[in-house]
Amino acid sequence: MSLYSRRGVSAQKEEVHQATAGLDKGLYPFAFCRIYEDFLGNDPDWVNLMHADGAGTKTILAYLYWKETGDLSVWKDVARDAVAMNLDDLLCVGICDNLLFSSTIDRNKSRIPGEVLKAVIEGTQEFFDELKTYGVTIQFMGGETADVGDLVRTIAVNGTMTARWPKSRIITNEKIEAGDVIVGISSSGKSLYEKFYNSGIGSNGLTSARHDVLESVYGHHYPETVEPSLDQDVIYNGTHKLTDRVKTETGEEMEVGKLLLSPTRTYAPVVKAILENNFDQLHGMIHSSGGGQTKCLKYLPRPLRIVKDNLFTPPVVFDLIRRSSGADDREMYQVFNMGQRLEIYADPSAADALIDQVRAFHMEARVIGRVEASPIKELIIDTGKNQIRY
Amino acid sequence: MSLYSRRGVSAQKEEVHQATAGLDKGLYPFAFCRIYEDFLGNDPDWVNLMHADGAGTKTILAYLYWKETGDLSVWKDVARDAVAMNLDDLLCVGICDNLLFSSTIDRNKSRIPGEVLKAVIEGTQEFFDELKTYGVTIQFMGGETADVGDLVRTIAVNGTMTARWPKSRIITNEKIEAGDVIVGISSSGKSLYEKFYNSGIGSNGLTSARHDVLESVYGHHYPETVEPSLDQDVIYNGTHKLTDRVKTETGEEMEVGKLLLSPTRTYAPVVKAILENNFDQLHGMIHSSGGGQTKCLKYLPRPLRIVKDNLFTPPVVFDLIRRSSGADDREMYQVFNMGQRLEIYADPSAADALIDQVRAFHMEARVIGRVEASPIKELIIDTGKNQIRY
Repeated sequence: MSLYSRRGVSAQKEEVHQATAGLDKGLYPFAFCRIYEDFLGNDPDWVNLMHADGAGTKTILAYLYWKETGDLSVWKDVARDAVAMNLDDLLCVGICDNLLFSSTIDRNKSRIPGEVLKAVIEGTQEFFDELKTYGVTIQFMGGETADVGDLVRTIAVNGTMTARWPKSRIITNEKIEAGDVIVGISSSGKSLYEKFYNSGIGSNGLTSARHDVLESVYGHHYPETVEPSLDQDVIYNGTHKLTDRVKTETGEEMEVGKLLLSPTRTYAPVVKAILENNFDQLHGMIHSSGGGQTKCLKYLPRPLRIVKDNLFTPPVVFDLIRRSSGADDREMYQVFNMGQRLEIYADPSAADALIDQVRAFHMEARVIGRVEASPIKELIIDTGKNQIRY
Repeated sequence: MSLYSRRGVSAQKEEVHQATAGLDKGLYPFAFCRIYEDFLGNDPDWVNLMHADGAGTKTILAYLYWKETGDLSVWKDVARDAVAMNLDDLLCVGICDNLLFSSTIDRNKSRIPGEVLKAVIEGTQEFFDELKTYGVTIQFMGGETADVGDLVRTIAVNGTMTARWPKSRIITNEKIEAGDVIVGISSSGKSLYEKFYNSGIGSNGLTSARHDVLESVYGHHYPETVEPSLDQDVIYNGTHKLTDRVKTETGEEMEVGKLLLSPTRTYAPVVKAILENNFDQLHGMIHSSGGGQTKCLKYLPRPLRIVKDNLFTPPVVFDLIRRSSGADDREMYQVFNMGQRLEIYADPSAADALIDQVRAFHMEARVIGRVEASPIKELIIDTGKNQIRY
């Protein structure tokens, strides 16, 4: 049994796919999100979407950091995670503006006081206010906060977005074809619209990362952050304190806790520009969330080979996790984004323009790979040291 | 400290109201749900809403019953709870059709297997299929199911709905005035569109009801259903087993577990008819969810007195809870619906037509009270034995 399974998580979500097998999958089977006809406007030229996601177990890291340091700002970062995990999925179908958002928060009142709720909810609105200055409008429509301490150990922060969008401006991944280049955008660094260095972590694989990196003292002091039936040897079996300092690839020192809690970067401002300027050259888009760099395989419209042989050097947070967990490249690239959370499949003629636009927002981008003809759907990740086939 | 507080729940949600105080409250401050301009269609004659709610800790009762009996059907009931708690809130602003739904499920994979997910998700679609035969169309747009065992002890089942609706057909509660009658619709019995007797319980107050009614053995056998820091004397301190049988007011015998797990009845089919036939005579509508029979006080548009002096005799499930908890009428009516989960404020001339339409769906309805002039906002509940002022 893998460490992942022993901790009660699954990178591939087999059971979820089985449970939802009978549902209406929408108009475009290979699109990154489920897209439906325009029930709300009844216009054949428009589509509707709803999308749900959340901060997952990243809230537990925020809880630990807040309990240890008193720093409430990490709860505002969690709010950003819950938004960006929705928003960046929607970017992949070409939706980048005029969104509605509703939050769903389940808390344990005996552990989570009102000031934490306030930070999460105000942090959400602050993020929307910032995004609006970049032309990305999201309306906060309210939500539900429930006190369910017998159900939730600390706090679960989720959100749901709704969009109505012109059919002629959506991306369905159907156009992905042999000959496409893949432009990847870095998940780390400090973009034009971020106030701090972002480690690149996103909101996936955090159960693993937390247990692998942090030391056992957290399990002893905060048993409310662990499912009690887990084996002791998979719980907080790392060597780090949250406040240990490590040097990032940019040379600055940062606490381990802050590295793991870096809010999921949204690519909305830059993708908005790209959608406006290069829409006709875009063939597909993938948010490397759950499933990491292998996520793309799920959305290939037909047998094709994806070759990624020029990925970014993984930023420090992934070195930290790898050293702590002893995971090999195959597993690391299957769970984490490894430094690139958005990839654009495009006509080669568009590559330079895409890269220039990303750089204008102070983020790194480059051609990280290509699509080749193949009799089967496959993915090759070549890290320079290892060639991994999925 | 009240029993309620000692169990980490709050009927009035003071901290949530503080946390959300800075948010945009929408166009109509007294409407039952937040209503916003038509961001999705940009039409001044239409409005948009998103609404989130869930089954709350009722999932824990389903968990206990399923573990004890192996009966998976209770998970389909939980799916109905998560839908009806959203749908019936939306009915109160006049919205009863053409809805979008997205689910948010957080589960502990080590406790909740795939077959439970399947029951919840398929139960949701089955409910939508049934409602469609009554003219209530809800489109299942997907959702998110996350494995977060370190966060959630068993399973949290939430949902979010989106609606776009003509402004001329919404109910804002602004028209509630002295002289209005209040027509209440029973929450118990067996309606035309239900397959079994409904106890009337809804999805509120279930943390209290579960601990007050059920005996301590459940705490010992299923510690995963309790926040461990709660005092022992507030945990499962009742006298009943889930499989104890009690006689309902209709004379049939039913298990205590099934009484508490009765799925929240939706009033959508009947309210749809009423909205079509009597819209101009409707002044307001209240879903007596959290806050029970006192919920109405929050939505009064100006100083007025609500007098409820002809409420239904509470069905058996509330007797059971009252006997178990020792709560007085003041508390019972403040937490539970006590047999009436929807109340319609209307011109007296409409009362007979409203009642007739409800009865056509095999549910009881009657004038349960009235609105009177008053210098302050107040509520009087007269049970025949007690007159309670809120």
